[in-house]
Order: sequence, then structure tokens, then C-alpha cells
Amino acid sequence: MGLPDNSTLRLFNLFLKGPKNLITDVSGVTVGHCTLKAGTINTGVTAIIPHPGDTFHEKLTAAVSVLNGFGKSAGLIQIQELGTLETPILMTNTLSVGTALNALVKYMLERNADIGVDTGTVNCVVTECNDSRLNDIRGLHVTEADARAALDAAAEDFAEGCVGAGTGMCCLGLKSGIGSASRLLEADGQRYTVGSLVLSNFGASGHLTIGGDHIGRRIRMRMGAQAYRDQMDKDQGSIIIVLATDVPLNERQLERVARRSMIALGRVGSYCGNGSGDIAIAFSTAQRHPHYSDKSILSDRHFFDDDIDVVFEAAIEATEEAIVSSLYHAETTRGFGEREFKSLREFL
Amino acid sequence: MGLPDNSTLRLFNLFLKGPKNLITDVSGVTVGHCTLKAGTINTGVTAIIPHPGDTFHEKLTAAVSVLNGFGKSAGLIQIQELGTLETPILMTNTLSVGTALNALVKYMLERNADIGVDTGTVNCVVTECNDSRLNDIRGLHVTEADARAALDAAAEDFAEGCVGAGTGMCCLGLKSGIGSASRLLEADGQRYTVGSLVLSNFGASGHLTIGGDHIGRRIRMRMGAQAYRDQMDKDQGSIIIVLATDVPLNERQLERVARRSMIALGRVGSYCGNGSGDIAIAFSTAQRHPHYSDKSILSDRHFFDDDIDVVFEAAIEATEEAIVSSLYHAETTRGFGEREFKSLREFL
Amino acid sequence: MGLPDNSTLRLFNLFLKGPKNLITDVSGVTVGHCTLKAGTINTGVTAIIPHPGDTFHEKLTAAVSVLNGFGKSAGLIQIQELGTLETPILMTNTLSVGTALNALVKYMLERNADIGVDTGTVNCVVTECNDSRLNDIRGLHVTEADARAALDAAAEDFAEGCVGAGTGMCCLGLKSGIGSASRLLEADGQRYTVGSLVLSNFGASGHLTIGGDHIGRRIRMRMGAQAYRDQMDKDQGSIIIVLATDVPLNERQLERVARRSMIALGRVGSYCGNGSGDIAIAFSTAQRHPHYSDKSILSDRHFFDDDIDVVFEAAIEATEEAIVSSLYHAETTRGFGEREFKSLREFL
Amino acid sequence: MGLPDNSTLRLFNLFLKGPKNLITDVSGVTVGHCTLKAGTINTGVTAIIPHPGDTFHEKLTAAVSVLNGFGKSAGLIQIQELGTLETPILMTNTLSVGTALNALVKYMLERNADIGVDTGTVNCVVTECNDSRLNDIRGLHVTEADARAALDAAAEDFAEGCVGAGTGMCCLGLKSGIGSASRLLEADGQRYTVGSLVLSNFGASGHLTIGGDHIGRRIRMRMGAQAYRDQMDKDQGSIIIVLATDVPLNERQLERVARRSMIALGRVGSYCGNGSGDIAIAFSTAQRHPHYSDKSILSDRHFFDDDIDVVFEAAIEATEEAIVSSLYHAETTRGFGEREFKSLREFL
Repeated sequence: MGLPDNSTLRLFNLFLKGPKNLITDVSGVTVGHCTLKAGTINTGVTAIIPHPGDTFHEKLTAAVSVLNGFGKSAGLIQIQELGTLETPILMTNTLSVGTALNALVKYMLERNADIGVDTGTVNCVVTECNDSRLNDIRGLHVTEADARAALDAAAEDFAEGCVGAGTGMCCLGLKSGIGSASRLLEADGQRYTVGSLVLSNFGASGHLTIGGDHIGRRIRMRMGAQAYRDQMDKDQGSIIIVLATDVPLNERQLERVARRSMIALGRVGSYCGNGSGDIAIAFSTAQRHPHYSDKSILSDRHFFDDDIDVVFEAAIEATEEAIVSSLYHAETTRGFGEREFKSLREFL
Repeated sequence: MGLPDNSTLRLFNLFLKGPKNLITDVSGVTVGHCTLKAGTINTGVTAIIPHPGDTFHEKLTAAVSVLNGFGKSAGLIQIQELGTLETPILMTNTLSVGTALNALVKYMLERNADIGVDTGTVNCVVTECNDSRLNDIRGLHVTEADARAALDAAAEDFAEGCVGAGTGMCCLGLKSGIGSASRLLEADGQRYTVGSLVLSNFGASGHLTIGGDHIGRRIRMRMGAQAYRDQMDKDQGSIIIVLATDVPLNERQLERVARRSMIALGRVGSYCGNGSGDIAIAFSTAQRHPHYSDKSILSDRHFFDDDIDVVFEAAIEATEEAIVSSLYHAETTRGFGEREFKSLREFL
Repeated sequence: MGLPDNSTLRLFNLFLKGPKNLITDVSGVTVGHCTLKAGTINTGVTAIIPHPGDTFHEKLTAAVSVLNGFGKSAGLIQIQELGTLETPILMTNTLSVGTALNALVKYMLERNADIGVDTGTVNCVVTECNDSRLNDIRGLHVTEADARAALDAAAEDFAEGCVGAGTGMCCLGLKSGIGSASRLLEADGQRYTVGSLVLSNFGASGHLTIGGDHIGRRIRMRMGAQAYRDQMDKDQGSIIIVLATDVPLNERQLERVARRSMIALGRVGSYCGNGSGDIAIAFSTAQRHPHYSDKSILSDRHFFDDDIDVVFEAAIEATEEAIVSSLYHAETTRGFGEREFKSLREFL
Repeated sequence: MGLPDNSTLRLFNLFLKGPKNLITDVSGVTVGHCTLKAGTINTGVTAIIPHPGDTFHEKLTAAVSVLNGFGKSAGLIQIQELGTLETPILMTNTLSVGTALNALVKYMLERNADIGVDTGTVNCVVTECNDSRLNDIRGLHVTEADARAALDAAAEDFAEGCVGAGTGMCCLGLKSGIGSASRLLEADGQRYTVGSLVLSNFGASGHLTIGGDHIGRRIRMRMGAQAYRDQMDKDQGSIIIVLATDVPLNERQLERVARRSMIALGRVGSYCGNGSGDIAIAFSTAQRHPHYSDKSILSDRHFFDDDIDVVFEAAIEATEEAIVSSLYHAETTRGFGEREFKSLREFL
């Protein structure tokens, strides 16, 4: 639900929030989790389904910005070349990308008898962060069934925090996971929505900054510097940012929106450390691109670039809140290696 | 006029040629030259005006592909960011980019009283090759008036070979310059045109290949290996490729078309040597983008990617012929440093 | 063994070939196949092991060039960010990337107890082409054991043609598969090697060109235009190019080498069609980068860019021959959908 | 001098500052200004000379990050291709890039008799921001002599604020200009310096944030919302960031450093608006690359990526302070169109 309105964490908002304050405020987008949590196992899968129809035959305009490429996501290069998204987006832990990919391939084959027979193959998008601080990642505990369960669970309402792919993630020295938020804007007299969902797993201890408040420094002092430093002394681990909108943006414009995610990362205290694979994917639901077409020339819409700042700001603001929300909703978790990461709420 | 139909140089054509077999077969495109030729001075300016209207207030969709970035062209980065072209494109020698830029800035200021007062500035596009093999390039002989003269001379009919920016250029060990060609294609029952214009100044001696015929090897033998090697023993010097079309392509698609210019370069014998600044700029006249707009959401058209191969092939074929044509139309020229570069026609 | 010297297919060679005329002429590189061939199953896995040591703790300098991004390879983005390769490279069919990725993850975990515990994760590189013209790709017949078998089979000697990932691939209307070649060059008085290995699956019927000879046109006539057209009427399907060298090149230089693969593609008749996911990966064995280091500042070597053309040419020439060799060594194959693709040798 | 230590503007510093707290703390770097200030003319040129020797024959490793490409800088593409800087960097107003380019070409020709005769040409780097809010930019008042004067004035000590190219620039609704800062770090027991110099001209009114303090909001209230909004209601106008260091970084690593400038922009309140051409150039003085070399294989040094975070942080911190310093040192200025922009110091 994004950050609650009565939160002690005050972000400066220029925009109204959507009704759910989630990425699913963008009509048609759904999100599902499969959470694996048992002893040293703290991992899972999160699925983002970009529209309720047939994503393969009705693709959405999409773009990618690789903020820092120390990451192992699959499916990004085709988005960059063709400007379209044709499958759900899965998130999981780094070493389970292959398993999630297999599950998504099978999911798409089931739904599309033409793939690999009457037409080409399918570009499945799987993203990841490394949850080995709290998860027995070498155990490869995610199964194809888990990935399928996340897809099947997709709904407009979904939990944030230690769920799905976020179960074992940590951020800025604290427990994090999945976070989401949304913002409303107006263009040509119509209301539009920008939603952000993050899998947050980046940042060094003590750096957390919320609305300009360097709260991370106070937390570090309360924890004791040594204890805190033990947790995360480097900005590493990655963040995946998925931006959805119903604003008609073309692929070039979506890339520009995605690229500005780095501003949101900076606001909460990241410096995009070497080891942080920071990837932003943006898609627009405004246009569906047919897989087959009788016509070679197709009509489209895009945004007047001179007016696009409002989209940039809304996306940055939603992403900033989504990151804070991923911390706010996370529970203190003890996991692999007897390590424990605290909930931000213990310090509010 | 592109390559004459009765040429002894047989390219394999899949497409019909346009009526002029020039880039100006794309309706609205005009080209002008200013040629400086006197003793050791062999240089000039070529102007490509993308449409006859107000290019600043009605921009065209455009893209750039930097095939090899050892070059000094100006104005490319904004095309990459915004996907539009808002001025004519000038070509000149490498050390005269500043002068051509000044001339183009003044040309645009004259025509647009709002630039720099009521609105932002203007992104002037100036490209270059190094003509120092035959031109006293350190003499900086190009003036702003020359650049203006090229702009003022722009017309549908224009010369190829040792004219304008091509006056002092050499290619694959022979004299070259400006070349152009066009191809016709059909989409949705309508006829479209792809035109290419090149400023060719790349390639090593002996490498020239035309329609699969390694003619460069025979030329090298006829010239005597040593004489030939003296001319150009390295693939260096650059090519600028401008692709124009009336096919409705978006900026992502135009970049894909531009990127495939490397195929044409390979066909005529280039290996994109280290020192060759190879730049391709592509624009479409199908859509005009307003500088000012009351609406934030604008309609557009693009091409169905699954059908786009015909545009790729037409662009490659036109560019291959444009390069050969730049050689075919060039005259044997003696210039700076007492160097002489032969016309291809002496070897046919 | 690359193209046999008595081949009727005459490429113009500027360089001496290596002793095996294979990528494994680059010392330390080994290649293995696992071939699945039974009825409608024509697929497999090919493994390229970049050096015989511990690739995770001793990484090689590497780069990627995405010539056309309509592809589903995994692991490329981290190579682009960090400039290093830390695993073998697997090749397989498009829908088996997840399976190959899982196999490679497990292979790396077995060999490196620190991954995911004492250090970060591992960036496994898996590439692919779509072999659905001859393979029941929807059957997902590749297993993790197959991928492991390819890794275990890696040796200096390896077969070309319809083997490994190449079992079901087709190229320019003919049966293709795996091809390889190498070239020798000299720098600072020392001999160096550039090797290329391709998984070729691109190109339209009739376009095959060898050494400037448009042989594809004659083949089309001999087959009957219709029969030929049925095979591959579009330039689609992809090529993966792996370039290995012992020349000390840094990651920027390797990217430049990889980018020039498009020249080789053009020489054999490709125009990088929309549907062709053309990816080139280049690595140098000259420098090993430690995973752990006591020192922050490390010494390195690179090539003087002004001398690099010889590497560009050698890489293009080796890649051109590798593609032709992938056709030359392939057998006529009947497979899925009762389709048959002929061997090039039937037309020589 | 960067921000004075007794400043009321408290940035959070992780690093010690260099002795001058300027980019010239990186040994060998010098900076010069030529300031044009008279009535409606508020413009100029700033020159950054990267080392005191012969920059053409001894190039420095360099990289570019185009944070937002709505800009007209020249010379960036060759830096991206070759990874080297071979001239000083000039900064001026947008419409004077051609003039500055001409001046820099002549400056380089004078110093290097081989350019354009015995060797290729030279890649001159000229960057720009649009100072038309306070400057009669259409008047084209910058001359080649002005650019030369900036080059000739280059020294280790230089002024910040309304000087050189910064004379007419505004930032976040206030008067800005040139700012600089430096940070010290240690690697392998040796002290290194990272310096940043900015030409700041971006950001919307009310967004200024210093050390997490949203001071821009208070300033907006004190000025009266309407007056403030009149100044800069959009995030547009650009920033040029030049990062210098003596840390041995290769071109890939310098690009990573440059890319992180967006974090600094975000910290002070930018969202990289559409109209803001945000360009970062980074160079290292640690290695000089010869223009001519007898050897093809050259030795080099680079930084262990796993240790590079300290450089990222130092660069972000120095850039953040450089931006604030560009505001702090600027004087209230009235200029073109009777517009006035206030000094930040009026609100402290």
C-alpha cells in the first residue's frame, strides 16, 4: 500500500497518490508472490503481469535502463532492440534466474501454441537480486512450481515487504523486500497513473535518507557502529525497478523515464556501488502492439517531450517511496549464517 | 544520379531505383554544394535540407548510429536523446566543423526569432571527414559564407563526385567525394522511397569490391603496388552516411536502419578501420514534430517491425550504390602535398 | 577445422591460418558439444571454455557487441559493465537458455565454494539461436545433463557442422551449425592468434556470398525458386559469434573487434534482418583478472589503437570463414515438420 | 575554493577535502576564465587544461556519460570510441560552441605542426549550457579571442561563481555559474585526489536541497511564489560536469564514475528534466597515452573494481559540493530581458 499516510517517514510529495498507492493502480497490472521462508531459506518469486490479456500477441511498449550492469537479469536486450514487452516480468534470487526462465517459457508455451512452430520464440524477462545475506542461495530452493505459483497469484492487491522475491533482501543495512507506490498526473485533461515496484537490495549501512533526513546515521548509532557495519558495509546487492504507466510514451521516452530512477536511488542514499546491479524496466499500457499484422504501417501515440517532466517527477517520486515502503513493510528477519537484519520500524 | 544504368559496375539490385536515383527522390529533401578548388585547396561544404518547411518548428524523426566513433561531428547526442532533427545537415572537412556550425547557427537564428529568447536553443548538425590527403586542411579555407552558399544552393538536382564537402575526399585508394542513390519499396499498397547520400573518405587501397568483384586488387596491380600503397595503406578517414526516407519509421527503427550501414561498408571493402569515423544519420519525412504544442499527447505512426527487412535491404543497397557512385563520379585530382588520387573511371 | 585448404570455396585470405584453423588455436580455449539428434529432435549444447584454469577467480577481459538485439542470451549486461568473463560460454536453442543457465550455475557452484557465501554470485553466459525449423523446440529436449556433457567434452579438437547447439540450425537457406576458423598476426615481433566460433542460423535464401561469389543465386536456381523460398524467405534466426584472442586488448578494444563482426555478416550475405538476434562476444586470454586482490591498483596491457586494424581484419576474416565453414561441414538434415535443409556441399 | 568550511551550508562529508578544494588539487590540472559582462551580455568561456604537457601527443584516459542528451557539446563521440582526451575542455554558451571550437582548433594547430599533415586531425572538446536567461545569446558575443584568453588564463587558482562560461548561468531558480570541489582518498597506501568542476544551469525553482535540507522551499516562500516561479519553473538548462582524478582508472571505470554524477544532481534537487542537457566528462591523469608508438602493446594500470566504491563516493561528494559552491559564489545578477537572479547568499 505504499507508505501509509500517517507514516513518520515524511517524503515530500508533489503528486497525489493512486487509490492503492501501488503499481497496480495502473489499470490492468497485477502482481503475485510466492514466498519461501523456512530456517535458512528466505527467498521466493514475484511476478508482474503487465496486462490481463495475451501479452505475447498484444505486446506493450517498453524500455530498459541499466543503471549499473553488475546483474544477471534475462530478456533485457530484446526490449532494448524492439521496444516491447511480451511476457510477465519475474523477480527472484540471482541463482534462480534459470529456473524462473524455464517456468516462464513453459507458461508462455502453454498459452501460445504458435510460439516455436508458426512464429519465432518468446522473450521472457526475469530479473534478480542476490539474497545470500539471509538465504541459502546455493541451495537453489526456488522451483519452477514456485515461479508458476507467483504468476498464478497475480492480483491487484498484493503484499509488500518480506514477500516473494523480497523475502531475503536487505537494503541500506536494514531488512527490505518488495515495495510499491503510485502517483497521479494529468495530461490533456485526462488523469494518468505512474506506478513503481521495487525489489530493493542495495545500499550501505548508515546511508538511508528519507525526505532529506539522514535517518541512517541515527540508526547506525543506535545499533552500535560495529553491529551495523557487519550488516552491509558496501553499497552492493542490486535493485530492480519496474515502472508501469498508462501515459502514452514511446520506447525512447520510457527509457528516459527508466534512466531517471537513479535520482530516486540517490535520494534514499545510494551511490550505485560497484556491486549493485541496478536495473530499471518501464512499460506503458497505453498501446498494444500486435504480434501479427496485415498492415505494415501502424498508428501510435507518444508524449510531447517538452511536457514530459511531470512524468519524470512522478516516476522518481513513486520509486523513492517504493524503496522506503520496501523497508517500512519488512519484518526483522534472521536467516542464513545466523545473520539478522532489522526492520526499519524498530527505529521509528 | 547514382550509378548510370549502363555502368560497367554491376551491383545486384533487388529494388527499383527512384527517378533521379538520388536522395532527393525522397520528396522534400534538397542538397546543395559549395566547392573550393584551387591548387592545394580541395574542400567545401555540402548541405542536406531535410524538408522545405520550417525545420525548427516542424522537426523530423531521426536517429544516429555511430559505427566507429573516431570522428568530430556535432549535434549527434541530441538526436539520440530526443529522436528528432531540427536543422539541415552540413558536411565539411574536419577542422571546419566550427565554422560550419557558426554558419548554421546564424542561418537558424535568422529564420527563427524565438530561438534563445522565447524558447531554448537549436541543435545544429555538422558532420565531417578529413580531406587532408588532397586539401591544405590546416589552412582552414572554409568560411561561413561558403557554408551559407551550400545551404542556399540546395535543390533537388545536385552533382556527385568531387563537389562540396567531397572535393578533397578519397576512398579505398581512389578519388571519391559525394555519392547518392535511392530505392523504391512498397508498403500497404503505397510506394515509398529510401535515399542515401554519402561523403566517402574511408578504406584501404586494394580493398574496393563492387558487386562481389574484387576490382581493387586489379587496380592495385595496374597502378603498381608501391604507388598504390602510398595512397592509402590504412582503412582510415571516415564516411558520413545520410539516409532519408518517407517510410513512417520511429526513432528506434531509424537507428536500426542507420546501424545496418555497416553492411554496405563491408560490401564495398571496408573493415571499419580504427581511424575511420563512420557515422550514419537517418531521418524520416513521414512525420513532423511540432516545436510547440497545446496537446501533450500526439499521434504518430511507425512500421511493423516484422515487415521492416525491406527497408533495411533498400537502405543497404542504396548506400552501397551511393559509395560506388561517389567513386564513379569523381575526377582524378592532384592536390596538397603533390599527391594525386585517380578516378575509378580510369580503371574501367 | 575451418575450411579445408582444397576447398572450392575461395575466400580471400590476408592472414595465415592457425594450425587447427579453429578457435582453439588460441591457447587454452577448449570447445565441447552435446548433440541431440533423433527424429524431430535436432538440437544440443556447445560449450566454450575460455581458459583451463579457474575462470571465476581468474577472469578474462571481455566485451559484447549486440549487432541486432532480437535475442535471448543471458549474462551479457555484466560483461558490458565490468569488462570481464568469469564462466564458460554455453550455446543452445532459444527455449533452453534457462536449462543451460541452471547447469552452468551448478557447474560454477561446484567449483567455487565461495560463491554466494563469502563473495557475490556468478555471471553465467548462455547464448542461443532458434532451431525450430528442424527441431521440436517446444519439446524442451535439452537437459541440464546435456549442458554438463558439453562442458565435460571440451577439448582442443572439436567437430564443426551439425553438432552441439548447431545440430538444428540453418543459414542462408542451407543447413549450417557450428563453424570455426583462426588467423595469425604479429605484433612487437611476437605471434598472436585470433579465433572465431559461430553458431550460424541467419540469412535469407539466395543471399549466400562466398569470397564475392553470389553462389546463393545459383543454388536457388538449382533448387527451384519455390522450394528454396520455402526454406528461409527472411533474414531471421540469429548468429552467435565468439571471438577469442591472445592479443592484449582491453574491454573497449574487444568491443570494437566484436562490433566489426557485422562486416563479416555482410560479406556472406546477411543484412542483419529484423528477426536475427546477432550477438558477438569477444575475450582476450592475455590478462587474468583476480576475483580477490590485496591491491587496489593493478597493472594491465592494451593495444596501441593506431595499430589495431590488423586485429580487426583478422577477426573479420576468421568470422567470415567460420560462417562458411559452418555451412561447409553441415550435413543435409531432415527434421521437425518434415522440413529438409540441404548441405552446401550438394551444390559445389 | 569549494564551499568555505564555515559555510552555513552543511554537506555531509565522508572524505577530506583537497588543499584548495578545487579540481586543480589534481596535480597538473589548470583552469582559466574569460568573463564577458556588460549590460545584457553575461557570458564567457572557461578552459580546463588536463595536464601541463602536450595533450595531443600525450593523451589522457577519459570517458563521457550523457546523463541527458538535450545538449550541443562537441567532441564527445571520439572520447567514447577511443577512451582518450587530447585537448583542453572548453565551456561556453550554447550558440558559441562553433566559435570556441574554431579557437581550440587553432590553439591545437599552433602547438602541433603534425596535425593534418603527418597525422590525422584533432578531437577538440567544447561543452555548453544555455545562458539566455541573463545573456543576449543571439548576439553571439563570444569571440575566438575570448576562448583563447580563457586558455591563456589557465592556472591552479581560479575563481568560482559568475565567471567564465558561468557568468550568465542560473540553477534551481538562483544565480549560479562555475563551482568546484575536491576530495582525497587512499589506495594501496597512497593518497589520491578526485576533483569536480561544474558549469551549473539546471533545475527548477524551489527544488534546491543542500545536505538533505530542502532550503529551496524556504527561499521560494521568502521570494514570493510568483516571483520565484517566473525565474525557472522547469528543470531545464543543463549542467556540464568535469571530473578529474589521479587515480589510475581505465576508460570503462571513468565512464562508471561519470555516470554516477546523476546521484549528485539528485541530491541537490534535480530530476534531470527534459530540457536539461546533462553531460559528465571524466579523465584520469595517471596514464599518458602516446600519439605515436613504436610498440603495439602498451602497459597500463587500472583500479580493482571491487574497491572502486570509494572513487564513486568521492566523485559524487565533490560534484555535489561543486554544484552548491557554484551557487554560493555567484552574485545576484541582472541581465538580458531585465531578469534578475538572486545569489543564494541573500537567503542564508
